[in-house]
Amino acid sequence: MNKGLLIVISAPSGGGKGSILKEMFSKDANLVLSVSATTRSPRPGEEHGRHYYFISRDEFQKQIGNGEMLEYTEYCGNFYGTPRAPVEAWLEEGKDVVLEIEVDGGAQIKKKMPDCVSVFILPPSMQVLEKRLRGRGTEEEAMVQERLKTACQELSHVKDYDYVVFNDRLEDAVADVQAILQAEKLKYYRNTNSIERVLKDAETF
Amino acid sequence: MNKGLLIVISAPSGGGKGSILKEMFSKDANLVLSVSATTRSPRPGEEHGRHYYFISRDEFQKQIGNGEMLEYTEYCGNFYGTPRAPVEAWLEEGKDVVLEIEVDGGAQIKKKMPDCVSVFILPPSMQVLEKRLRGRGTEEEAMVQERLKTACQELSHVKDYDYVVFNDRLEDAVADVQAILQAEKLKYYRNTNSIERVLKDAETF
Repeated sequence: MNKGLLIVISAPSGGGKGSILKEMFSKDANLVLSVSATTRSPRPGEEHGRHYYFISRDEFQKQIGNGEMLEYTEYCGNFYGTPRAPVEAWLEEGKDVVLEIEVDGGAQIKKKMPDCVSVFILPPSMQVLEKRLRGRGTEEEAMVQERLKTACQELSHVKDYDYVVFNDRLEDAVADVQAILQAEKLKYYRNTNSIERVLKDAETF
Repeated sequence: MNKGLLIVISAPSGGGKGSILKEMFSKDANLVLSVSATTRSPRPGEEHGRHYYFISRDEFQKQIGNGEMLEYTEYCGNFYGTPRAPVEAWLEEGKDVVLEIEVDGGAQIKKKMPDCVSVFILPPSMQVLEKRLRGRGTEEEAMVQERLKTACQELSHVKDYDYVVFNDRLEDAVADVQAILQAEKLKYYRNTNSIERVLKDAETF
């Protein structure tokens, strides 16, 4: 059995990453979503190991020191990060692991796990992105402006990603991400075991 | 519009490349098959520009000298090769161009057009390959043995290819090659124009 794929998916806020992932997970039983660790307190309804691994600040810093965090960031006084151990266990099992992650984290992962497949979800245009952000209808104008500004900064990181998927129609974007995973699994260097078997076989002819 | 993809497809004799390509061409109107040039004489029914470009030995050697052959080989006293000009014209038009080519030619192409996508079609096992070669029922035992020996030599070149597709079930193999093309078109560096448009757009926000 081949190892699973590590998939980094990033998108600016409003990029539609959530809908794409929801579709992907409903269609592919081999896909698992990595769970982040955080030092913030659980909110009502949040479960340890499902929504987050809730750990202490001391524990988090110890894990950083031991190289046990694939990436991390500090935000509003709390740490957030991706613990390495569960990701590697899933990959060994042949599961494809999705990291839904912002752009700084994406760059850290690519450095530590260069074999990962990174996908940046792009809006078809900034106008569409703006429309989608406003379309939520739940956000104040100042918040929309703030999110747009952040989105623009995030977009500048697209060059660090392997693939780009333009999220115009949801079904097309999902099919694109699925094709990327299917193709990556066909890369020569991911199949050396199966190839070796045929080559060994060929020697006896 | 993005440039088309140059796709090199190789397989050992009996690997099922023909059936896969036939399916691909029936499903994808944007795909064109490169036409080889040769110095051998046309056989009855063969058309210039469709089955081959039939050119003189002098002309062929002149084209080699001018770098106008992407790859070539001499076989039974005749030259066979891939003329560069029509391939590049198709790519500029956005067509995806398939080169159905043996392993030595494949390596030459990868050198001259490193951006090409190379796919090696593998039989699921040597036993299956042998069965397929015999299954044709048209070949003598000596010929089957000869083809098997050639296949084994060809298999050793699989390491020079980007992707491997195991041809077990035809539909799966076709879907695999299609996924490879779809994914390759989503590579960051093939989409810099469209990305540039969104980024420029973002600057005005």
